[in-house]
Formats: sequence, structure tokens, C-alpha cells
Amino acid sequence: MDIDTRPTTEQCTGLLNSMGDALYVIGGKWKLRVIVALRGGHKRFNEIQRAIDGISARVLSSELKELELNGFVKRIVHAQTPVIVEYQLTGYADTLSPVLTSLADWGAMHRDKLRRER
Amino acid sequence: MDIDTRPTTEQCTGLLNSMGDALYVIGGKWKLRVIVALRGGHKRFNEIQRAIDGISARVLSSELKELELNGFVKRIVHAQTPVIVEYQLTGYADTLSPVLTSLADWGAMHRDKLRRER
Repeated sequence: MDIDTRPTTEQCTGLLNSMGDALYVIGGKWKLRVIVALRGGHKRFNEIQRAIDGISARVLSSELKELELNGFVKRIVHAQTPVIVEYQLTGYADTLSPVLTSLADWGAMHRDKLRRER
Repeated sequence: MDIDTRPTTEQCTGLLNSMGDALYVIGGKWKLRVIVALRGGHKRFNEIQRAIDGISARVLSSELKELELNGFVKRIVHAQTPVIVEYQLTGYADTLSPVLTSLADWGAMHRDKLRRER
């Protein structure tokens, strides 16, 4: 899909909605950070919280629930005493790689620009 | 940059910061919509507001100021009576194309997935 060719109004609305969907699911302050924290493999709640500077348990819990609802994170309960709960990324989370890569590339370029201009 | 190879902690922090920078600049509810609304060429304030469903004049004004500050939007004042003010995208805004394209592609794929699962 080439976003530079001028789209019709209908195509434009479709593009906008698609981008809106993407931002709705991975936008906000924490979601990408949780996903990146889980890229190294499954982790317990406390391990995730330690990996993300400044996130509260309440916020992390709600972010994990949303990520689970959207199919990015799987909650694994190990039935033992005491019960151990772990979180890991689903295969679906890997589909975000091109988005994360383009965001990281652009962000690095933008940071360089700001540094040069200072 | 391949985001799938496991990065060192330092590289990981760099990646995270880059993605954070990108989301900081284009994240939120309206910024991308304003950028897309301006893709067709320069527009007056009221034209932009009409093109974006549900944005208030106060919010649009503050979004435009931030986009101008970050170098995405240029404010052009035509010295005539009454004064006409127009907004247009800068060349720098075009550097966002790969990000917008990957967001739109992923969002469309995600929407299809949700539709199939319903």
C-alpha cells in the first residue's frame, strides 16, 4: 500500500481507521514497553514490573489485561503451590515487528535531528 | 535494524527510547489525523476542523502548535485584509511515511483478524 498516492475519500477513511486501530491497540504510554519487556521470553508479574521503569502494579495489571484481550499476551498459570503466574507474548505479537521497527527507525532519526539542531 | 535479534540491555533501552520518541510525537488521539488531513495540501484552520470528525477548536489549536514545534507543520500567514492563515505539512512530515504505512498495514490486518474471529 503506497500512502503517498492520493487516496479517494473512502480509501482515506479506511487508511485512517486502520492507523487508528493500530494506535488504539499499541498506543499510550506503556503497551509497547510491556511488549518489549516480554520479548526476551516469559516473565512473572514482578519481573515485568521491575523491567519497566515507573509503572505501578495497578497500571501494569490493567495493561496486561488489555494486551491479553487483544491477543498479544498469554497468561500461563502453573498449578502448583504456591501458584505461579507467567506472561508471554503470543505469535500474534510478532506481527507487530514491522511497526516496531519503523517506529524505532524513525524515532532514532528524529532524535538525531533534534540533537543536530540543538 | 532487525528487532527480532535479541538486543543487549543497552541496545534495548535505545530501541525503547526511539519508539518512545516516535510515539511521543505522533501518538495520542489526534496527531496522525491532523497530519493525514493535511496530506492533500495546505488548509485553513476551519477546513482542517471540518475534515476531522469530533475535534474541538481548542484541541486542534493545541495539536497544531505541537506539530509546528516538532517540525511537521508550517503556519503560513498571508498578509492581506482580513489576514488568512493556512497550515501545511513540511518536507519533514514526509519522513513519517514508512511509519504511517506500516501502521495502516498492520491495522488493516488486525481489523480483518477481529472480523474473522467474530
